[in-house]
Amino acid sequence: MDIHAYLSGIRREVDSYLDILLLPDTQEPATVHAAMRYSVFAGGKRIRPALAMAAGESAGGESKTLLHLAASIELIHTYSLIHDDLPALDNDDMRRGHPTCHKMFGEAMAILAGDALMTRSYQALCDLPNVPDSTRLAIIREIAYATGTKDGMIGGQVVDLQSEGKKIGPETLEYIHRSKTGALLTACTRCGALASGAATEVVETLTRFGRTIGLAFQVVDDILDVTTSSEQLGKTAGKDQKVHKATYPALYGLEASRAKARDLVASALAEIESMGDRAEPLRAIARYVLSRTT
Amino acid sequence: MDIHAYLSGIRREVDSYLDILLLPDTQEPATVHAAMRYSVFAGGKRIRPALAMAAGESAGGESKTLLHLAASIELIHTYSLIHDDLPALDNDDMRRGHPTCHKMFGEAMAILAGDALMTRSYQALCDLPNVPDSTRLAIIREIAYATGTKDGMIGGQVVDLQSEGKKIGPETLEYIHRSKTGALLTACTRCGALASGAATEVVETLTRFGRTIGLAFQVVDDILDVTTSSEQLGKTAGKDQKVHKATYPALYGLEASRAKARDLVASALAEIESMGDRAEPLRAIARYVLSRTT
Repeated sequence: MDIHAYLSGIRREVDSYLDILLLPDTQEPATVHAAMRYSVFAGGKRIRPALAMAAGESAGGESKTLLHLAASIELIHTYSLIHDDLPALDNDDMRRGHPTCHKMFGEAMAILAGDALMTRSYQALCDLPNVPDSTRLAIIREIAYATGTKDGMIGGQVVDLQSEGKKIGPETLEYIHRSKTGALLTACTRCGALASGAATEVVETLTRFGRTIGLAFQVVDDILDVTTSSEQLGKTAGKDQKVHKATYPALYGLEASRAKARDLVASALAEIESMGDRAEPLRAIARYVLSRTT
Repeated sequence: MDIHAYLSGIRREVDSYLDILLLPDTQEPATVHAAMRYSVFAGGKRIRPALAMAAGESAGGESKTLLHLAASIELIHTYSLIHDDLPALDNDDMRRGHPTCHKMFGEAMAILAGDALMTRSYQALCDLPNVPDSTRLAIIREIAYATGTKDGMIGGQVVDLQSEGKKIGPETLEYIHRSKTGALLTACTRCGALASGAATEVVETLTRFGRTIGLAFQVVDDILDVTTSSEQLGKTAGKDQKVHKATYPALYGLEASRAKARDLVASALAEIESMGDRAEPLRAIARYVLSRTT
């Protein structure tokens, strides 16, 4: 299958759905809605939505349900980007080739737009269509724990911040990757499975797939930061190195990092080998993650 | 009944429960857990927990369920205080008689601690004990909408920020109060009712009570800001006036504001007149709100 066509299709669908989930920027107070929309629609590969939808598809889920789930997850991801970019945190001026939210709307509005996107995500998850309340609740629980302080997104971000300029070991690097990005990426495939009413063993298989591909994704991101120019990347490249951020290439070198990414993708593919044709998009995403290294 | 003894009792119970809900500050990453705990335990009247518990009690709810609900709401309230106090927003150095979170832990950690408290609140609401999933979900939906951008807490905060130094009319003032603080106060009584499995008409009665007492609470807060010293208040008094914030006394004068508070409390009491003895704590809270003006 053509992964680029597949991802473009998902991006279009998800963007249309995000446009429905987000209040119009004519709705008062207009500025916060404009800031939320600005950051949500400032590009982005929509890899989390794609993972959630492809995982759900592999488990026989309904497309309307999966699309709603995917868009809700992208809202929470966007909140995390806005807050991470703030001057007090990573102090990034550019994101996805555009000025960051606080550069466009000021710091106060960026903080509130981030808060509002997280809040909107929970609102939307409460209204996940065509599933029972118990499934909605199970998904909200997954997302809330994946983005929390204990082995979740915020925990990873805290350790990442505290590691800047310090020499860190493999354990800390693994904690940061597993928590800061890995937990939400894993939640994507888990929630896709849950939203599809998948059997426990399918949920577990997709959890292992998500965990492995999530780590691969982060290793590749680290590699790209070293090997790609800012222009291609759409954000300040080499920044991780400049501020001595913990990365795979810094710790293991470029070649070992590439081998690590290859191994991870191979083992993610092995996890879902027996899943049949419905898992084709998920396999294509796994191969795509690896293709980004070259 | 002795409202001060009642509120002290609730404060003790809620604080013990918050201590269970919050991860220990020995749990890594320790700093964010320390920052969360610092702000949650930096004083506070626990008026939202008291409203939720008293409303739930009036509807015959279980005390363990109500306590869990009350503590979860206080987590989300504390997140909003931390973010509101940030330099980019209200730039407050003191809160509840203590240095604000960013003064103690720095801006980055305050932003993340706020995010983490909101997230922890949703985690906790997923685990609300002794109620069906449909009730948990209904409560999460209430909280998420009450704290969102449309007629909710963030919306009110945005308009409040944008009104600083401007002359605003009664409609904008009402919007700010209704959204910034009123929506969550109303959610307290509504969720207390929902957590108790109350009949629709009881939920509606407690909603009207919550809305009315919430507005009274805000009018009184405005009055106190004008009439009380910083030392008594535990935060920078007169600040609203200094930055030309929209307040009731500024718009209507002190005496008319006091009369407004009296009328609101009387009509809140009238709402729950027929509710019997179980509503006594709720009545005591209503009278307490008014007593704070003198």
